Amino acid sequence: MIAVSKPTLVVDKQKAINNIRRLVKKAEKHNLTLRPHFKTHQAHEVGRWFRHEGVHSITVSTMDMAEHFAADGWKDITIAFPVNILEIESINKLASQINLNILIENLDIAKCIESKLKHEVGVYIKTNTGYNRAGIKPDNYPLMDDILQVIDSCEQMNFLGFLVHSGHTYNAVNKQEILNIHEKCLLELSQLKAYYIQKYPDLQISLGDTPACSLADNFTGVDEIRPGNFVFYDAMQFNLGSCSINDVAIIMAAPVVSKYKDRNEVLVYCGADHLSKDFIETEKHKTFGYLARFKNQSWEIIDTSNYMKSISQFHGVLKLSDEVLDTVNVGDLIGIIPVHSCLTVNIMKYYKTLDGKVIEAMPPVKP
Amino acid sequence: MIAVSKPTLVVDKQKAINNIRRLVKKAEKHNLTLRPHFKTHQAHEVGRWFRHEGVHSITVSTMDMAEHFAADGWKDITIAFPVNILEIESINKLASQINLNILIENLDIAKCIESKLKHEVGVYIKTNTGYNRAGIKPDNYPLMDDILQVIDSCEQMNFLGFLVHSGHTYNAVNKQEILNIHEKCLLELSQLKAYYIQKYPDLQISLGDTPACSLADNFTGVDEIRPGNFVFYDAMQFNLGSCSINDVAIIMAAPVVSKYKDRNEVLVYCGADHLSKDFIETEKHKTFGYLARFKNQSWEIIDTSNYMKSISQFHGVLKLSDEVLDTVNVGDLIGIIPVHSCLTVNIMKYYKTLDGKVIEAMPPVKP
Repeated sequence: MIAVSKPTLVVDKQKAINNIRRLVKKAEKHNLTLRPHFKTHQAHEVGRWFRHEGVHSITVSTMDMAEHFAADGWKDITIAFPVNILEIESINKLASQINLNILIENLDIAKCIESKLKHEVGVYIKTNTGYNRAGIKPDNYPLMDDILQVIDSCEQMNFLGFLVHSGHTYNAVNKQEILNIHEKCLLELSQLKAYYIQKYPDLQISLGDTPACSLADNFTGVDEIRPGNFVFYDAMQFNLGSCSINDVAIIMAAPVVSKYKDRNEVLVYCGADHLSKDFIETEKHKTFGYLARFKNQSWEIIDTSNYMKSISQFHGVLKLSDEVLDTVNVGDLIGIIPVHSCLTVNIMKYYKTLDGKVIEAMPPVKP
Repeated sequence: MIAVSKPTLVVDKQKAINNIRRLVKKAEKHNLTLRPHFKTHQAHEVGRWFRHEGVHSITVSTMDMAEHFAADGWKDITIAFPVNILEIESINKLASQINLNILIENLDIAKCIESKLKHEVGVYIKTNTGYNRAGIKPDNYPLMDDILQVIDSCEQMNFLGFLVHSGHTYNAVNKQEILNIHEKCLLELSQLKAYYIQKYPDLQISLGDTPACSLADNFTGVDEIRPGNFVFYDAMQFNLGSCSINDVAIIMAAPVVSKYKDRNEVLVYCGADHLSKDFIETEKHKTFGYLARFKNQSWEIIDTSNYMKSISQFHGVLKLSDEVLDTVNVGDLIGIIPVHSCLTVNIMKYYKTLDGKVIEAMPPVKP
């Protein structure tokens, strides 16, 4: 059993390894490079679980995270975030040590990098296939051409291809919508690839979002996938249909501190300072996580008519049926499947496996 | 000027000290003990700013936070969260070293504490005047009496009084509604006090929420206030009317990494992993913070028709007018007043004063 006295993030290592293996096999089947995003787990230890399954190239979000994983021996890292030119010195330093890939989506930045880059980097052009957060529209050939001209004229920049993140799959209401978004994305990328393939015969298409990478079976024209969340999954991914509830490998153990029988509620020591404030809207209610009971060396989901009604910095309020309320007592630990495992890990910085091993995520960045 | 290369939380020390002084004076004027909540800043350094203004008793949310501040010499600490019985050993240890106050709101827990407590603690009964998150309704005399009986029969428990947090002021739509909630709370607490004052002539009423403590001028019957957020304030408090925008002492410096002229948007390196996902709804739009420009040793708010439209783990998208867009360039730093400073501090763990001093908040808790 879990033996903790305060809110603790718990990982089922075997489930996480199963999740890794499933994607490794899928990538093999479709002849794709799996370059998993390590922003979800942020931990050297979990990185090693991937390495053990044959993964050697990874994705991160920040320069700090690239340095964090380079320090544990990762030699092939893509920073999947448009270059922050203020960190050019760090880019130069790391690029002298490992195979570092960066993202460009802006002509001014491309020119600025060209003038300041001292070591070779791989370069993707960040492409926007509808999420509209970052990137260049795939039919904006004039801007693509201008940026490619800068890349081509710079000895230190090696053009690798086009990189996309279809984050709008997270707004989908069902699996079919996720697949539709994915298919549209594939179509746009295949047109883009066709346009440039003669000039750049080795160009790659890299795409990454856990919903599509989990659900799709068509990756025509794609060379690389970069999902991250799948290692743990979470309530949001289950709600989207990306995974079964039993694939979710992460849970918060939360102490029950009070019971309110008159309003069928329980107060837990677990709030936004542990779970973040992400929520999902199910058919019946908004919830900040799915509930579970710890049992032997695992956990069991509690009927989802029971839910986490509200959250503040340290408090969480659970709404429970009479039946469940009767079985929950102050001093118990209750499990909460987080809505967004990436945010939870980033806040907690530490987690524990079911057999009690403490895993440290990337430490806070000292300014 | 701020010289940072990545998302950095910046504090205007002088503004924070002014905020502390304003509340210290207000407490003096109303003959109240100011027992500020330190969950907002979580830092020894900022705690010392309070101490310098004559504050000697504090509030925290967790056992870990109590230990963190006790380690910096704080000797009078209230943990304003219902006792987590799983941490009774830590309570006993700290209670042997300092004046520790705890909250009880549950009869089972009261009995359990009675049987396990080894050192003297002060005890408040947590009272619910309408927020309905935690606490006992102020007219639930039978339960109050049962708990008081346990407290009275235990040599180590010293009954201090009733403690309330009117967190529902955060849902108010204007100042008057905040004041109405506060007045209703005062009325209920005065009835409660009247009921028990003969038996417990020294009983205290402790209340704490930044909106009411900032705005109210009537504290009849109250002995102690415990606001926390006021040291920094934030976008939410400004939006509620608790402070002026120039009282806000905290801001995120975010690097601008891309510009999208066609959609009047700018991409910043700053997301939920820095600001949390809290947002406010203004009349015109939902925003994840107010925007500002850094100027000399300070910052200037940008017209609030410009706003932070969306946020994901590391990305923030700002919607800007043509005029503002023209003046913002990739490689610039833009300021973002966080919606909820407590959550931001808890995520970032470090912040920097305008003159470059690094302040460390409480480190992540190792399980």
